[in-house]
Amino acid sequence: MAEKITGNMLIAQSGGPTVVINQSLVGAVLEAKKHARIKGIYGSLFGVRGILEENFVDLGKETTATLMRVARTPSSALGSVRRKPSEEDCDIIFTVLQKYDIRYFFYIGGNDSAETTNILNENARKVGYDFHCFHIPKTIDNDLRENDHTPGYGSAARFVACAVMGDNLDNRALPGVKINIVMGRHAGFLTAAGTLARIFPGDGPHLVYCPEHPFSLERFLTDVDAVYKKTGRCIICASEGISDGKGEPIISRYTRETDSHGNIQLSGSGALGDLLATRIKTELKISRVRADTFGYLQRSFPGVVSEVDACEAFAVGQAAVRQATAGVRDGSITIVRKPGKTYGVEYRRVDISKVARQTRHMPGDFISKEGNDVTEAFIAYAKPLVGKLPEIAQLKTFPVRKK
Amino acid sequence: MAEKITGNMLIAQSGGPTVVINQSLVGAVLEAKKHARIKGIYGSLFGVRGILEENFVDLGKETTATLMRVARTPSSALGSVRRKPSEEDCDIIFTVLQKYDIRYFFYIGGNDSAETTNILNENARKVGYDFHCFHIPKTIDNDLRENDHTPGYGSAARFVACAVMGDNLDNRALPGVKINIVMGRHAGFLTAAGTLARIFPGDGPHLVYCPEHPFSLERFLTDVDAVYKKTGRCIICASEGISDGKGEPIISRYTRETDSHGNIQLSGSGALGDLLATRIKTELKISRVRADTFGYLQRSFPGVVSEVDACEAFAVGQAAVRQATAGVRDGSITIVRKPGKTYGVEYRRVDISKVARQTRHMPGDFISKEGNDVTEAFIAYAKPLVGKLPEIAQLKTFPVRKK
Repeated sequence: MAEKITGNMLIAQSGGPTVVINQSLVGAVLEAKKHARIKGIYGSLFGVRGILEENFVDLGKETTATLMRVARTPSSALGSVRRKPSEEDCDIIFTVLQKYDIRYFFYIGGNDSAETTNILNENARKVGYDFHCFHIPKTIDNDLRENDHTPGYGSAARFVACAVMGDNLDNRALPGVKINIVMGRHAGFLTAAGTLARIFPGDGPHLVYCPEHPFSLERFLTDVDAVYKKTGRCIICASEGISDGKGEPIISRYTRETDSHGNIQLSGSGALGDLLATRIKTELKISRVRADTFGYLQRSFPGVVSEVDACEAFAVGQAAVRQATAGVRDGSITIVRKPGKTYGVEYRRVDISKVARQTRHMPGDFISKEGNDVTEAFIAYAKPLVGKLPEIAQLKTFPVRKK
Repeated sequence: MAEKITGNMLIAQSGGPTVVINQSLVGAVLEAKKHARIKGIYGSLFGVRGILEENFVDLGKETTATLMRVARTPSSALGSVRRKPSEEDCDIIFTVLQKYDIRYFFYIGGNDSAETTNILNENARKVGYDFHCFHIPKTIDNDLRENDHTPGYGSAARFVACAVMGDNLDNRALPGVKINIVMGRHAGFLTAAGTLARIFPGDGPHLVYCPEHPFSLERFLTDVDAVYKKTGRCIICASEGISDGKGEPIISRYTRETDSHGNIQLSGSGALGDLLATRIKTELKISRVRADTFGYLQRSFPGVVSEVDACEAFAVGQAAVRQATAGVRDGSITIVRKPGKTYGVEYRRVDISKVARQTRHMPGDFISKEGNDVTEAFIAYAKPLVGKLPEIAQLKTFPVRKK
């Protein structure tokens, strides 16, 4: 087994970008610079595609000043890819890794990227290639198993919370029904973060629908009707991946595009919001109904960053390199929340296979019994991850006596 | 004619909210507190609807601390409305104004709200009601005549610039065609602001379509094809109001909902983006095509604020009260840019009718000859309005020599 071997390091980014994914890249690179066993520090452009094409950049030559500025820049600085390597790919990859004497390999991404890392790791064992192979977590969806939460989530959750906070103020001024479609195929964490926008009594979102709970259009209309009749307005947050009782996504009736990991393309279409809005208009006879699909803005918006998230993203990159240089052969770095009242985390290694492929869902106690809201447990969980939200205020509203 | 009369003041907000519309409210209220002729300082809830329903709050009782916090809170704190008063409404309104001895009236809004203010002002003259009547400008669309720019635009433009900046980084990482639909019925100012996201060579948006230039789907596809073939990706910013050669909005084929000012409801639907994306997919055979409709997020997002915009929004509220208390009977406050290299503005009064109803369009020299981009003149115009954008960086990318 590999133990403290000397050679070059290769790092790459994969899957959907986040606002803090470059923190992980830079955390790993700056840590690597401290270790004599790591010689060249290379970046592969566009994930595994860069290995197949031998398209590497020398990150060791970048100045710390540049790296620190890149760390604060959204989206994957090395480029990204959604590609599951085939057996043929693996053959090429190991030829390339050997040719460039890559002995430390780090892949930053979500569960699909963990799967890719795992495939490479398993293949390395098979062909007897001696290297350190680590997966570094990232995903705004917050759906990696073994993790309390994932780098990228806090900042995306902050974006969603801010967006809904503004939307709630907008909707108070011009009342009506407003639907917000939030990213999340199978996990409702990001959609649920909209509830952090609740500051004053009566604030939206008034209804929240996550993919973990079967979505019924009839029940939905009943919910909206009840809120609207009571308050004269209604703000809804719904995941793009809300599904019917059979697990069929509501939106999948409209699109069938899939990627190489078999995921249906849900984002970047207003179809779900428009569908829900139309049903409310026609069946509840409410005239002012609007829908926004937050889309790609959620994951790369510069300036809307959770400080906690940025620090943790840096730390997981660092932790992976520390583990590898300490002699650990492989693994995925996970974030574990420390028990106690004060928020704190630690970074632990788990087998890559434990985070690969399958996704994590919202725990049952995060979703209300009715399936149309979150619980206090979710709020307590999510609050420390997004940081202090912008302060908003209300007039005290002293009524003028009618004459 | 009214000159330095003593009585109560009424202020209201109307039309689409902005991130800085409360700055104007607070600017006016704090200024009013300084003038002895202004007795009660009342706010009408939900624009003119509050007058019809005698639904007023006493803003004079609010503390400066509360008011300053409200100033920094997005969206209309008094609530808003889209309502053009009928003759019947006007009769009721003047009875109410008299009953509450309202001698100073301020209406914060866009061109439709200016129209409402103008109707009230004209009617006041007819019925011989003695009051000061002012329109205070606001609109993210930046389409008020007589104004260099309008409060609300700078912050919304900042949101759009940031969104496109993030989107460009996202699209560099995962290349494809990306369409961003930006608010703007008749004016392309907000869409054009996406170009402020260009920091490094090759940065998007690569194509920009404003309502001022006739939109041809064929020409659009040719443009996208050319950019995509050259660079392997393409970011597009298009106004929701892009129209064909006959002035028919492309999107109006899909929706017919209108408000009482006769405006077609364009926002809050992904239909235009989806339509354009589908045409690119089917006709150009490009597989990764995505569309986002920025929707309502553009106008009320907390924390994404241009400092210049916030200050100017406060100042126009202040200016209106100063004019009125100085004895000027009526008017609309406009922002005029001072000539010279350093950015600076002054606030001038014009007749309300001059900003009411019709909207302002992008000057011809802001749009490129081909109609698919902006000019340097636009960039120079818009840059000082949005403030310093978040800093982003790129790796220097030192290639590793192939072996």
